[in-house]
Amino acid sequence: MAVQIHHGDILYAENKNSLKTHENSYIVVVDGMVEGIYTEIPAQFADAPVTEHGRGVIIPAFSDLHVHASQYTERGLGMDWLLYDWLNDYTFPQEAKFSDLDYAKDTYDAFVDELIANGTFHAAIFATIHRPATNYLFERMEEKGLYGYVGKVNMDMGAPDFLCETTEESLAETEKYLAEHTECTTVKPIITPRFAPTCSQELITGLGKLAQKYKVGLHTHIVESKWEAAEALKLFPDHGSDAEIYERAGLMDNGPVVLAHVIFPTEEDIRIMKKHNAVAVHCPDATTNVIAGIMPLATLQDKGVDVCVGSDVGGGHHLAVYKQVARAVQLSKIKEFYEPQESRTINFANAFYCATKVGGSAFGKMGSLEPGYHFNAIVVDNVEDKGILLTPAERVERFCYIGDDRNIVARYIDGKAL
Amino acid sequence: MAVQIHHGDILYAENKNSLKTHENSYIVVVDGMVEGIYTEIPAQFADAPVTEHGRGVIIPAFSDLHVHASQYTERGLGMDWLLYDWLNDYTFPQEAKFSDLDYAKDTYDAFVDELIANGTFHAAIFATIHRPATNYLFERMEEKGLYGYVGKVNMDMGAPDFLCETTEESLAETEKYLAEHTECTTVKPIITPRFAPTCSQELITGLGKLAQKYKVGLHTHIVESKWEAAEALKLFPDHGSDAEIYERAGLMDNGPVVLAHVIFPTEEDIRIMKKHNAVAVHCPDATTNVIAGIMPLATLQDKGVDVCVGSDVGGGHHLAVYKQVARAVQLSKIKEFYEPQESRTINFANAFYCATKVGGSAFGKMGSLEPGYHFNAIVVDNVEDKGILLTPAERVERFCYIGDDRNIVARYIDGKAL
Repeated sequence: MAVQIHHGDILYAENKNSLKTHENSYIVVVDGMVEGIYTEIPAQFADAPVTEHGRGVIIPAFSDLHVHASQYTERGLGMDWLLYDWLNDYTFPQEAKFSDLDYAKDTYDAFVDELIANGTFHAAIFATIHRPATNYLFERMEEKGLYGYVGKVNMDMGAPDFLCETTEESLAETEKYLAEHTECTTVKPIITPRFAPTCSQELITGLGKLAQKYKVGLHTHIVESKWEAAEALKLFPDHGSDAEIYERAGLMDNGPVVLAHVIFPTEEDIRIMKKHNAVAVHCPDATTNVIAGIMPLATLQDKGVDVCVGSDVGGGHHLAVYKQVARAVQLSKIKEFYEPQESRTINFANAFYCATKVGGSAFGKMGSLEPGYHFNAIVVDNVEDKGILLTPAERVERFCYIGDDRNIVARYIDGKAL
Repeated sequence: MAVQIHHGDILYAENKNSLKTHENSYIVVVDGMVEGIYTEIPAQFADAPVTEHGRGVIIPAFSDLHVHASQYTERGLGMDWLLYDWLNDYTFPQEAKFSDLDYAKDTYDAFVDELIANGTFHAAIFATIHRPATNYLFERMEEKGLYGYVGKVNMDMGAPDFLCETTEESLAETEKYLAEHTECTTVKPIITPRFAPTCSQELITGLGKLAQKYKVGLHTHIVESKWEAAEALKLFPDHGSDAEIYERAGLMDNGPVVLAHVIFPTEEDIRIMKKHNAVAVHCPDATTNVIAGIMPLATLQDKGVDVCVGSDVGGGHHLAVYKQVARAVQLSKIKEFYEPQESRTINFANAFYCATKVGGSAFGKMGSLEPGYHFNAIVVDNVEDKGILLTPAERVERFCYIGDDRNIVARYIDGKAL
């Protein structure tokens, strides 16, 4: 039994209404899992090594539930364009380069390093249509000990020829990909149709069969813009909602069901999401940069839908999920200003809860520091001004608003220091 | 005659429609001023020292036209509150501490260092009501060679007792402050009534007389929220617009006229701003964090109003003006989505132009690298991914979206390296 103890201020979100703080406390970690938090070291752990974090705040690692690893090198470029042009002129040509495995390796190495630098240890990731490059990303994530769902993207229509598969290729490559990863540890495959406008009915139906056969989850975008929502129903005319396209194909039966954006959900979308314990992924910067609209976050929560947070790089420009925590609060204020009947302002605790405990739940017992959770954690420090002491909650709020990777002074996954 | 030459990629905004790029070029600086940009070093400057910046992009320093130095230690705290509570429970108690000069020194030293770190070399600054602390900030700015307008704040009503002056005190202290700085170099005093809801008519009238006597400009907030706009006209009932309150008092006669936020301008506000060459200061993060509404930036420009950019720390959470460049593009997209009849999306060049050339114009020939401008510049580097070369414009866009002070690898004011 390997025991380690960390001393400092400890903070996590128990629920959307409150941050739980243990000041000047000891967190005991046994075999990589949180055993408990104490004001004094319990007698049975008296011999365990103690790591002192001083004014550092120990918080759960972040979860990024929607990110395109292949768009990493696009971040912060073409940000004044709109979705259609940005996809066609920037993103699709960029993704096409991942047919070259060497190109992919450089990008995916940098992507994984940057996830770690920013304290994101759990991520649901879009790769590209290319299986070899996707496998490289999968293995790189495992090698570093990160938790993830990595998807080979499917698209057999509605995209440039250089980035389109035939339906048969798409299904065959996906099955190979799933078959290659039936024995996996921290990273798992996930079925990743880009979105309805780039997938034929035949492809979606075929992916549903693979989901049943290999017992894997779904990661896609739904109702991300008024255009996308309308286009989806035009292409799938016998369906009543965007979510139903995936539900009817059997893509929501195994979990996790990770649905990005969810900006214009219908009541039917909401019913389906709840039925399948889907997480709705809020990506504030991306919806501001290239997509029109703001998720009705508080309203979705009120209706029983779990909401988590994604960076959506490269629609979003930065991989740091903590920056999206701040942005989620900001966008909720704008939403309330313009559409008070649709949603309302959320507080910081709620946004932090979405980015840690809710997001982490897609991967197992992660995203909190309560007993029984994986000790996947970071230590945030050096955010105070000279002579002015802040509470742990203030230090974490400030970190999310103005901090960067320099403020993350220690990183642990399953208790192992990175 | 002191000549220096810098080699690299050079970029500045000529106007709101275009970024001017000189790749692989030489910028010649004579006695701290830009002499010209060349593809080869002109013969008459052949002996001057050349500084090589490699892949660095040489760009103009940023101008922050609206920032509260006294709120520096508040940044990123209480950001889920709303304006009224945030002012009364966080900001006013914090500002009251500036009666203690030692406290003020620590904060103002850190504030000035952070301006420099982030490449902001020109700033219009609210201090507090306290003259000694304001003088310290003034001198600290001058000592570091920064350009600025520093204001002792006026408020004789509508604020807690511990932060209110009597009308007589407010006028007397302001006159002392102006009289102390009649001989100044890079920093100048500016009259800074907080906003109409905290100033009596008698105070505004008296400040107008001081503006005439000492020939100084105005820095205040106008139409920053629907509440503020309505309250201003309730307190100044014989006035037709928020801007008119200051115009009629004679506060707009000498320039500069720096008006923060301008979210709900009437046609009369716009007429007055144009008449007095006022700059309207867009503070994207602040208007998202604590204020309701988004400036109609493109529409103000269409109507002939100059728009620049401010961090508005502590309503805004970060001093980096380049981050506000990105945010200005983002908010213009949200504004167009919700109010297409009121304004429209701006491009990156326009936002960069506002934050450099327009903002800089309030201080003299600053904010561009055209001949005749002060060589107040920074060098931005290390934003490219391995093996992927970006254009200078892409490097600067990326810097504004995902960069931080680590990407600013050199800083010059009047040609002097900091």
